[in-house]
Amino acid sequence: MSVRLPSVEEIRDAAARIAPYAVLTPVLRNASLDALIGAQMYFKCENLQRGGAFKFRGACNAVWSLTDEEARCGVVTHSSGNHGNALAMAAATRGIAAHVVVPEGAVRAKLEAIERAGAVLHRCAPTIAAREAKAAEVQQATGAVMVHPYADTRVMAGQGTLVLELLRQSEGLDAIVTPIGGGGLMAGCAIAAHGITPAIAMYGAEPSGAADAAQSLAHGARIEHFTPDTICDGLRALIGASNLDALREHRVEVITVSDEETIAAMKLLWQTLKLVVEVSSATVFAAVLKQRERFAGRRVGLVLTGGNVDVDALPW
Amino acid sequence: MSVRLPSVEEIRDAAARIAPYAVLTPVLRNASLDALIGAQMYFKCENLQRGGAFKFRGACNAVWSLTDEEARCGVVTHSSGNHGNALAMAAATRGIAAHVVVPEGAVRAKLEAIERAGAVLHRCAPTIAAREAKAAEVQQATGAVMVHPYADTRVMAGQGTLVLELLRQSEGLDAIVTPIGGGGLMAGCAIAAHGITPAIAMYGAEPSGAADAAQSLAHGARIEHFTPDTICDGLRALIGASNLDALREHRVEVITVSDEETIAAMKLLWQTLKLVVEVSSATVFAAVLKQRERFAGRRVGLVLTGGNVDVDALPW
Repeated sequence: MSVRLPSVEEIRDAAARIAPYAVLTPVLRNASLDALIGAQMYFKCENLQRGGAFKFRGACNAVWSLTDEEARCGVVTHSSGNHGNALAMAAATRGIAAHVVVPEGAVRAKLEAIERAGAVLHRCAPTIAAREAKAAEVQQATGAVMVHPYADTRVMAGQGTLVLELLRQSEGLDAIVTPIGGGGLMAGCAIAAHGITPAIAMYGAEPSGAADAAQSLAHGARIEHFTPDTICDGLRALIGASNLDALREHRVEVITVSDEETIAAMKLLWQTLKLVVEVSSATVFAAVLKQRERFAGRRVGLVLTGGNVDVDALPW
Repeated sequence: MSVRLPSVEEIRDAAARIAPYAVLTPVLRNASLDALIGAQMYFKCENLQRGGAFKFRGACNAVWSLTDEEARCGVVTHSSGNHGNALAMAAATRGIAAHVVVPEGAVRAKLEAIERAGAVLHRCAPTIAAREAKAAEVQQATGAVMVHPYADTRVMAGQGTLVLELLRQSEGLDAIVTPIGGGGLMAGCAIAAHGITPAIAMYGAEPSGAADAAQSLAHGARIEHFTPDTICDGLRALIGASNLDALREHRVEVITVSDEETIAAMKLLWQTLKLVVEVSSATVFAAVLKQRERFAGRRVGLVLTGGNVDVDALPW
């Protein structure tokens, strides 16, 4: 499935389109963490985004990009959590239906949030093939428009809007680090960042148990069969083909981190930054902690992607 | 012990004095929580203050109010945690010694932070009398200047600076809610708020197991003997005499909340606002949740006082 990558102009259009609905999330700094790394870090707090994750940006842009005729039967997606919730909330802003296909085993707190947002849940087996098959079935039955979590031009454009904000909220960033799951966030962010400041270095943080992007870049070909094994429930997706092209084009370096490193980073963010961030989000800080010497002396933007955590079941 | 209350001019001076060292903390809003209460809430995030609590403001103002001669032998205080940490950090900004008397049973994470900040710890029994006796002993032995956690004009002035910021960061607040422990925060905040906007209603949130301020106001006389029984470790202090005068003068209404209500509010803040706030801080939101009809339709500032939590020992 090849999907056109958005232009920086489309990302700017997305920013205008979602502005009435999305939160302009704050950027936090922390002197203790800066001292620990020897860098100046700018934490872009997408855990404070509507729905508790950056995903609202892409979903909202997709929903409001539809014509009235297209929007009539609603939207459908498959998602382990945050994108489903985001699409449900975005659909509600337009008063249209949302159908969300969710794999068995998804985080309970996330499923409850999707239902509260008014979506219809459709359950399926926890494999990528089962998710796509079920979504296609729902799409045929309802006439809803598919909004893929990451292999979608409008979604990528929406995610990229956070970098437009981050660049305005910081000064002279040298590098930006985002997690890599399906790669939609990284693609949107890299296009936005390089459309404005071509010299910014882009880093992706990927769980070592779902390092398909790192391996695909290393082998020169996209890995297509892959069983993720990571606690990072938001990063188990296989990277999209076009998204991988975007990573290559924008010279994204991927840093892999173990779940242990990510959990330690998550705990440190909670203790020091005083933010509730979910485990997938903590990969970015785990990557910076792991390769401290690489980031020392630089101005680094870290995208904290979400804060949807089951606070009754913390990973430490 | 009667202590002069600060003027709003002294609070403005304090703001200028601490500006080079303190964080201008953000004010967060949240659509879901607003909908739940039917109010417009402005959360002043002092958990994001240096040291993870508003206490840095008062301690920093006290430390930098000293003449060089006064500052020579350092500062001393007694504190169950956040004020001790704040004084240690404030002393470090001036390069002077800090002695902190801590009761047995204080939160481990807070004691570790005080030591990391470079203070000398002095342990004592967990009673108010033992704390004051030990602090007097250290003061005599070292020549350090006493900086009381709340019965101190400079400390109250420093705490009040957060309201100067909050009023600039919000629009037309009708009410402000802060927790009440020793009452230094509330006194400083009430003086600052009414110095600028006399019509703002001030509410104090107090644990029902440490409701000495509520009882003192109800009985018309300050309760002087009292054994606190609450999980809110930051709010176990007996209200200062002058602080109680300030509460009367500024027509502060005290809302008492049970520990169960506070823990539920804390969990909701973590889940929805995505902030790590400590249990004492959650009393303000517990009070608003409990008396929702009182706050509905109003613009309410809530002071989230701190975020120093042992994330390995959450209260739910």
